[in-house]
Amino acid sequence: MIYLDNNATTRLLPEVLAAMMPYFGELYGNPSSIHLFAEQSREALRQSRVAVGRLIGSRPEEIVFTSGATEACNLAIFGAAAARPERRHIVVSSVEHHAVLHPIERLRAQGYEVTVLPVSSSGGLTAAEVAAALRDDTLLVATMLANNETGVIFPVAEIAAAAKARGALLLCDATQAVGKMPVHARRLGVDYLALSAHKFHGPKGVGALAVRRGAPIVAQLVGGGQQWDIRSGTENVPGIVGMGMASYLARRRLEEGAYGAVEALRDRLEQAILANIERVVVNGGGEPRLPTTLNVSFEDSSGEAMLQLLDEVEIAASSSSACQSNVKEPSHVLTALGLSERYLHGSVRFGLSLLTTDDEVDELLARLPRIVARGRAASTERSASE
Amino acid sequence: MIYLDNNATTRLLPEVLAAMMPYFGELYGNPSSIHLFAEQSREALRQSRVAVGRLIGSRPEEIVFTSGATEACNLAIFGAAAARPERRHIVVSSVEHHAVLHPIERLRAQGYEVTVLPVSSSGGLTAAEVAAALRDDTLLVATMLANNETGVIFPVAEIAAAAKARGALLLCDATQAVGKMPVHARRLGVDYLALSAHKFHGPKGVGALAVRRGAPIVAQLVGGGQQWDIRSGTENVPGIVGMGMASYLARRRLEEGAYGAVEALRDRLEQAILANIERVVVNGGGEPRLPTTLNVSFEDSSGEAMLQLLDEVEIAASSSSACQSNVKEPSHVLTALGLSERYLHGSVRFGLSLLTTDDEVDELLARLPRIVARGRAASTERSASE
Repeated sequence: MIYLDNNATTRLLPEVLAAMMPYFGELYGNPSSIHLFAEQSREALRQSRVAVGRLIGSRPEEIVFTSGATEACNLAIFGAAAARPERRHIVVSSVEHHAVLHPIERLRAQGYEVTVLPVSSSGGLTAAEVAAALRDDTLLVATMLANNETGVIFPVAEIAAAAKARGALLLCDATQAVGKMPVHARRLGVDYLALSAHKFHGPKGVGALAVRRGAPIVAQLVGGGQQWDIRSGTENVPGIVGMGMASYLARRRLEEGAYGAVEALRDRLEQAILANIERVVVNGGGEPRLPTTLNVSFEDSSGEAMLQLLDEVEIAASSSSACQSNVKEPSHVLTALGLSERYLHGSVRFGLSLLTTDDEVDELLARLPRIVARGRAASTERSASE
Repeated sequence: MIYLDNNATTRLLPEVLAAMMPYFGELYGNPSSIHLFAEQSREALRQSRVAVGRLIGSRPEEIVFTSGATEACNLAIFGAAAARPERRHIVVSSVEHHAVLHPIERLRAQGYEVTVLPVSSSGGLTAAEVAAALRDDTLLVATMLANNETGVIFPVAEIAAAAKARGALLLCDATQAVGKMPVHARRLGVDYLALSAHKFHGPKGVGALAVRRGAPIVAQLVGGGQQWDIRSGTENVPGIVGMGMASYLARRRLEEGAYGAVEALRDRLEQAILANIERVVVNGGGEPRLPTTLNVSFEDSSGEAMLQLLDEVEIAASSSSACQSNVKEPSHVLTALGLSERYLHGSVRFGLSLLTTDDEVDELLARLPRIVARGRAASTERSASE
């Protein structure tokens, strides 16, 4: 199997699992219990906070562990709204993940005004565009660091500065970026930064919201008062330990410049597709992008058919966000890029990782021309039958 | 180490870990991806829903996986309130876990009226007492199945019938009960039932809310639309698989009557304490109780000192809910029992499990008289110095 769906989820690294194992075994104490046995669990949480904080440029005490990025984004949005009820305006990019867009839609239904910012045809957004949308009553600006479908990187530091100048809070959904590019919450100047372990070779079911010291937040899960009463619930100790180890490894890889090779592989794939297949565009191609993501649209082809054909030869890819795979409508991200109908339905996202090999890319390149041709035939048949 | 804090958390069973391992390895697909590889993750979720549903008497499609019982209780309370905004009254027992009480307190702050029902001196609550508190605008009744501190079991089926007769919804926090006594959500007639895997030898970081088919609910985590749009977020596949296996094993143990031995061990411990130590009461002693829980209060003793002394000889127990261990105030549960001050501060909770042995109970019994005596001395010293 050739796995090129790393934007959906990544393979757990063996070192991460090894770090988790003791906490599935002897070290099962509840960190909230007072006995010494539980101290081992508490210490594990502390160390993981340090490791996660180091990866994203936050202090350990700013890390609030959650069940994943969806919870983290929901916490930031609803938590900021509850903390500053006098501000009733939100600015959000049109290409955010649904875990950001849908909570904001809920606030809109409750009376908030929402400015949804369009992006350029290459998926870009400038700080000036955000600044122009800000108002005196802007509660929150939500702009992701790197887009999960196109890999396009937003100028979050500049956006954060613009937000701060108007007293607005900034949520940066860094879920797709963390572990694949340097991320430094403090230097970015964001108030809330969301991430998820399983996107960078950690376990599913654990993520975090980094809450800048002093940033207002009202807890959304209330109960036993864990995590400074910002997020109640017995901590997922093995998962958090796994996230800590995944963070440590990711930081080391980034320091070693390991993503240079992934980027070269992605670029080779991209150039070979452009050279060998006609009528294709690279979505987000004109913008700074994650080294791991290649999103291409083939004119007059069926993304669904191409993915199925890839699947038949054991190549796993996707057409848009995994969270939206069941939905037949075209991705809101590619729609926001203003892609024409003839390209919109012929999109495939290849998500590479450090585990992707040269041979896998060669295999994909060998098969792709025929698969695109068959996708085009399927698309023509469908059009004819409609 | 003698672990008698099983109400706080339990040891993961090796079979549970074994079931999880493939999903930390080769089977890492995102269940929302469309390729065949991800189908294995989807199938794992389906099987786990069946196993959890069988344990608690719910249909698979009624099981909404969460990050634990805290999230499940928060989802039920806030989700019911959002679904039925016209009803503004809530009935809750005074001995619920904070994961139930605190969300309800938040609703009270938003204008809801809340009736907090006292319990008897033995921790009991009758359906008639609940019925008397119901009103035409009662949204929700929240009564746990078994108390986490005393083990006292509430007559939830009768309470649910009373609630239903008045059109109120019923949340049953069954976190402490599931896996230790038969639980059947449909026969109980509850609308929402909360549980957590790590309380019955499953992994931390995963739980569920069983939502009766047709019961109103508004999602609290919104985003990618997973789990019928009731709970967005990439599913914690290995954790859910672990919860499924823990459910399967728990059901088998219950069918085999395995808890008879635990109950006999608990009863032996209880009787020996009553026989050998003076001035001691069993909290919840007059009520039906979980087979696993013994909560005792020693007059004029210091619970804190006793726990520390137990800890020094590697016996892990607790004085109240683990979630409240950092809090110096006496437990709200024991306070609700009307325990006098002289007993209130001398409480210890022993939480047994299927892994607890005769030898461990003997060891505890051998050490306890001296520990209680020293706890009493510590209490006297403290009183003298005040």
